[in-house]
Amino acid sequence: MLRVGVIGTGVMGAEHARLLRQEVAGATLAAVCDLSADRAAAVAQGARVFTDAQALIDDPQIDALVVASPDATHAGYALACLAAGKPVLCEKPIAATATEALRVVEAEVALGRRLVTVGYMRRFDPAYADMAQTVAAGQIGDPVLLHNIHRNAAAPDWFTGAMSITNSFVHEIDISRWLLGSEPVSAQITAAPGGDPLMITMETDRGQIIATEVYMNAGYGYHVHAQIVGRAGTVEMAAPTLTTVNRAGRHGHAYPDNWVPRFREAYRRQMQAWVDAVGAGRPVGASAWDGYVATAIAEQVAAALPSGAKAALRADPRPGLYA
Amino acid sequence: MLRVGVIGTGVMGAEHARLLRQEVAGATLAAVCDLSADRAAAVAQGARVFTDAQALIDDPQIDALVVASPDATHAGYALACLAAGKPVLCEKPIAATATEALRVVEAEVALGRRLVTVGYMRRFDPAYADMAQTVAAGQIGDPVLLHNIHRNAAAPDWFTGAMSITNSFVHEIDISRWLLGSEPVSAQITAAPGGDPLMITMETDRGQIIATEVYMNAGYGYHVHAQIVGRAGTVEMAAPTLTTVNRAGRHGHAYPDNWVPRFREAYRRQMQAWVDAVGAGRPVGASAWDGYVATAIAEQVAAALPSGAKAALRADPRPGLYA
Amino acid sequence: MLRVGVIGTGVMGAEHARLLRQEVAGATLAAVCDLSADRAAAVAQGARVFTDAQALIDDPQIDALVVASPDATHAGYALACLAAGKPVLCEKPIAATATEALRVVEAEVALGRRLVTVGYMRRFDPAYADMAQTVAAGQIGDPVLLHNIHRNAAAPDWFTGAMSITNSFVHEIDISRWLLGSEPVSAQITAAPGGDPLMITMETDRGQIIATEVYMNAGYGYHVHAQIVGRAGTVEMAAPTLTTVNRAGRHGHAYPDNWVPRFREAYRRQMQAWVDAVGAGRPVGASAWDGYVATAIAEQVAAALPSGAKAALRADPRPGLYA
Amino acid sequence: MLRVGVIGTGVMGAEHARLLRQEVAGATLAAVCDLSADRAAAVAQGARVFTDAQALIDDPQIDALVVASPDATHAGYALACLAAGKPVLCEKPIAATATEALRVVEAEVALGRRLVTVGYMRRFDPAYADMAQTVAAGQIGDPVLLHNIHRNAAAPDWFTGAMSITNSFVHEIDISRWLLGSEPVSAQITAAPGGDPLMITMETDRGQIIATEVYMNAGYGYHVHAQIVGRAGTVEMAAPTLTTVNRAGRHGHAYPDNWVPRFREAYRRQMQAWVDAVGAGRPVGASAWDGYVATAIAEQVAAALPSGAKAALRADPRPGLYA
Repeated sequence: MLRVGVIGTGVMGAEHARLLRQEVAGATLAAVCDLSADRAAAVAQGARVFTDAQALIDDPQIDALVVASPDATHAGYALACLAAGKPVLCEKPIAATATEALRVVEAEVALGRRLVTVGYMRRFDPAYADMAQTVAAGQIGDPVLLHNIHRNAAAPDWFTGAMSITNSFVHEIDISRWLLGSEPVSAQITAAPGGDPLMITMETDRGQIIATEVYMNAGYGYHVHAQIVGRAGTVEMAAPTLTTVNRAGRHGHAYPDNWVPRFREAYRRQMQAWVDAVGAGRPVGASAWDGYVATAIAEQVAAALPSGAKAALRADPRPGLYA
Repeated sequence: MLRVGVIGTGVMGAEHARLLRQEVAGATLAAVCDLSADRAAAVAQGARVFTDAQALIDDPQIDALVVASPDATHAGYALACLAAGKPVLCEKPIAATATEALRVVEAEVALGRRLVTVGYMRRFDPAYADMAQTVAAGQIGDPVLLHNIHRNAAAPDWFTGAMSITNSFVHEIDISRWLLGSEPVSAQITAAPGGDPLMITMETDRGQIIATEVYMNAGYGYHVHAQIVGRAGTVEMAAPTLTTVNRAGRHGHAYPDNWVPRFREAYRRQMQAWVDAVGAGRPVGASAWDGYVATAIAEQVAAALPSGAKAALRADPRPGLYA
Repeated sequence: MLRVGVIGTGVMGAEHARLLRQEVAGATLAAVCDLSADRAAAVAQGARVFTDAQALIDDPQIDALVVASPDATHAGYALACLAAGKPVLCEKPIAATATEALRVVEAEVALGRRLVTVGYMRRFDPAYADMAQTVAAGQIGDPVLLHNIHRNAAAPDWFTGAMSITNSFVHEIDISRWLLGSEPVSAQITAAPGGDPLMITMETDRGQIIATEVYMNAGYGYHVHAQIVGRAGTVEMAAPTLTTVNRAGRHGHAYPDNWVPRFREAYRRQMQAWVDAVGAGRPVGASAWDGYVATAIAEQVAAALPSGAKAALRADPRPGLYA
Repeated sequence: MLRVGVIGTGVMGAEHARLLRQEVAGATLAAVCDLSADRAAAVAQGARVFTDAQALIDDPQIDALVVASPDATHAGYALACLAAGKPVLCEKPIAATATEALRVVEAEVALGRRLVTVGYMRRFDPAYADMAQTVAAGQIGDPVLLHNIHRNAAAPDWFTGAMSITNSFVHEIDISRWLLGSEPVSAQITAAPGGDPLMITMETDRGQIIATEVYMNAGYGYHVHAQIVGRAGTVEMAAPTLTTVNRAGRHGHAYPDNWVPRFREAYRRQMQAWVDAVGAGRPVGASAWDGYVATAIAEQVAAALPSGAKAALRADPRPGLYA
């Protein structure tokens, strides 16, 4: 049994802890850590409680870590896990800046083996996985265009345009790279009045087009959609619902308020896959390198936002460790 | 950790073993048992192998059992588990006949505590669960009519009309009772030429209508659908797919060949819920009593098939243990 | 130009008059007739106004009639049109009773040529027509089962169980005969508490099954659905909407309050087809015979309602005129 | 009765003639004209036949014209109709170039009354109309983003990138202006390898975004889709089908090969609305001005295609006649 320690017991940390306790084979929730010992204890439900993350990382009874603390701390904990030689599933983003993300990559390259998985959980979402399989099966021919839609019900006032890119659009960057197997090389942004929604068109190194709507205040609910257009057909997500209702003059289904219900199964599959992969000594999911690229591209897209002109995108060359 | 032994390593037994090994928290696959030691070993993947089910049931290193052997053996193994005082998740049907099923119920009543869960996995299917929650939330008012559709791609030649009732329609009996919380009291069957499809209309003790199509040779694939009609609206399953494809002049999605892909997640959730419930010492899922009722009703419906006339349905009174 | 007179200027008569005036080629609205001259004048919009239907029927400036007066008067006007040798499009039902309907048939047979079309407009509905074409193209193999759903938002208090059959289910009888090309020979009815909804299972002379839900107080809106199940597949109506909306936490579309919006296009196509057919001197749509059968079957099903037992259905033999 | 002459008897001219003959109230097909007298006679079905369009336009027995001849001739015939003072429904585009289109506008302005309708039939499509009504009813709040998808099954080899804009995207320009009630002021184009598909992002004078995929060789069929995104919700087209089929392992529906079946009802409604409007002496549909703007914008977008840079779009000021 893999003994896992969870750092951070907010919404995501609590969910990761619950998954380890209740829904994943081959692992136990050995400990949780939070600056607030009370909050940690509420999540621990019998597991050990830490308030010092370094102590948890270094604890010999802990085999692997999950990092779900505030974004600004991710890179530091990832580096500490690498220093301790322990596998870590780190919530996205891997770092607050591309520069910092690159330090994590460099540390892992220096170590010579892959211990970091970045929690871009969409790669484990059944709908995205089904789209990827449909493409791999040759059902739609070579992909040439990817339509992404990312809608939040409402964003807080302090959620500025740049944050919609670095916080939300960054998910689209990662999943687009994963779906298409190619790298964005340019971006052009068009903003509606007030800066929301955005329409972002990227080109990849294979000439494919990625057209993404990012809408922080869509009003009606949390809604993510994607459609891949190929040379012989298209594949897209079905309606995100299990049932439909006829009621009060209308047919339909509900949307969730936020991403948690939409991606609950993706988080479970990610955790199971990570536990399995750690046990087998092989990497899984988004690598530190993937995390760096997503952050680097998001940073450059955000920088291009004010001008609206097409911006070239670049990332450092991929180290051999991630071939 | 709950140490589980699996009896029977055919398609379903192998899947149960896989779930215990790979996808369920709180349990281990401790042993498997099959008359064919080779087949058992292939599924065991390191777990102990038995060819004598009684020895497995009695083994002190085994805490609980999963029975996935041929239908005719279910009741016998369930009785043996009760005799050994061990919890058992028994594949449906609980017994080959209502009389035999009643013996399992009587043995459990005599024991005075519930150890038997019958594997009517649809109760754990996310879509059925969502329908039940929609009803419970008052979204559609009091349910008055339930439409069920049960279609298999093709049945073997030896699959006679009565088997379509005792083997397939029995699922509709259990899930209809679970969705409506009421008991069927009459049934009327109309058969198409050749005895397939059947249209079966049942009334419940609360006057609700259950209208079910059972089609063993629907040709196009395995497809289960249900719609609950209430006094203020309806709820039904959405299309059973994660994605849709445009290709070769058509829009659409695929159906599976059989029930396994459709209900994979239901089996996982059933297993996790059963492991959790055994650990907590409480019952979960379809009881031995539910198993008896489903078998008893199916038997009576099958007997009514030749005449086509409306038949009254009855079941023994429910013992207090299952209140 | 065919000069058409419309008898009856209620909801349906006014719509027929509007179609003749605004949306149909080859005809003019020459006159309207109503006991209320005011109501007639409001609909006439320049056409001549009658209060005596017989005078309208006999008027030499009128080539053909549309009958949309109260149901009890249909047969009398149809007979008058036959006596005058003028084509008539008569709203359903052709008569209040099967006996009376048969008199219309007999009069037409005596005349020796077909002048009566009964307004079972569903035969011209694009969705039903598409289903029929799909079957005719061999896409689903031989039809063996037809599921019909007929839901009204709410019925007036005086709308009794028998009326739900003679007024609403009668549409299902006609369209089922048209879709399957076969005749119902038995019916079995199951009623929910209060007599609504009904589940009616009929068998045809070719052994097919027709399973129909009739729900007068479905609450959420007017909704008609049908699915034909064949030996190789199924065809069913798509959602009855042109657009879908995401709003206020939900995805979906609206239902109309009544049948008019749902079948507006069917009424237009029926009128155009009737005008074309009259011009060409050939029959179109449901014949007087079809009207008689629908009424006769509905009468017998209504009579079987109290018992709930399976009832044999019969109709007089089809005269050669309708071969 | 409006006596209409149709110029051009190719696919579209034949369809317009058929509508006038068979499906439209208030008009007759009085004559057809084609350089090929044989082709014209085949379409005329009893109407008079011309080979000289000017003679038809000038004929005193002709009240109004439909122009469906080759694109290059549209402007000339429109000018001739204006000179003759006769209403004309002219197939899109109004002219081969913006300069030529402006001449038609100027001639109509000089005449001082509106006689030209350009056949942008999408404005009469039930689905687009339903979207517009949904917006007008305030269901989705202020529109801020419009997603258009325009896919053809396959384009001939000689169909170059610029033609995909001037021939296909021009429809998106017109319908976007009509849906949003605003004018495009910039465009940025991203092309996939081979120049197909294109992703075209326009901004309007109210800051709205119009994001359009134009795909000439989508492979699977002819498919047009649109979604309007507002401040409080979205509205989009439902699947373009009346029925769905389960067959051979799949659920789904078919796409047509080309635009005719998809927009058949739009063409009928356009013709009926035009006949009604001519009779009432008021304009309807896309004006000569709308036709000029669509052509002018398309020309400028096509010119911007090679660079990929954002291009400013402009049109001459709108004359008061079109206020």
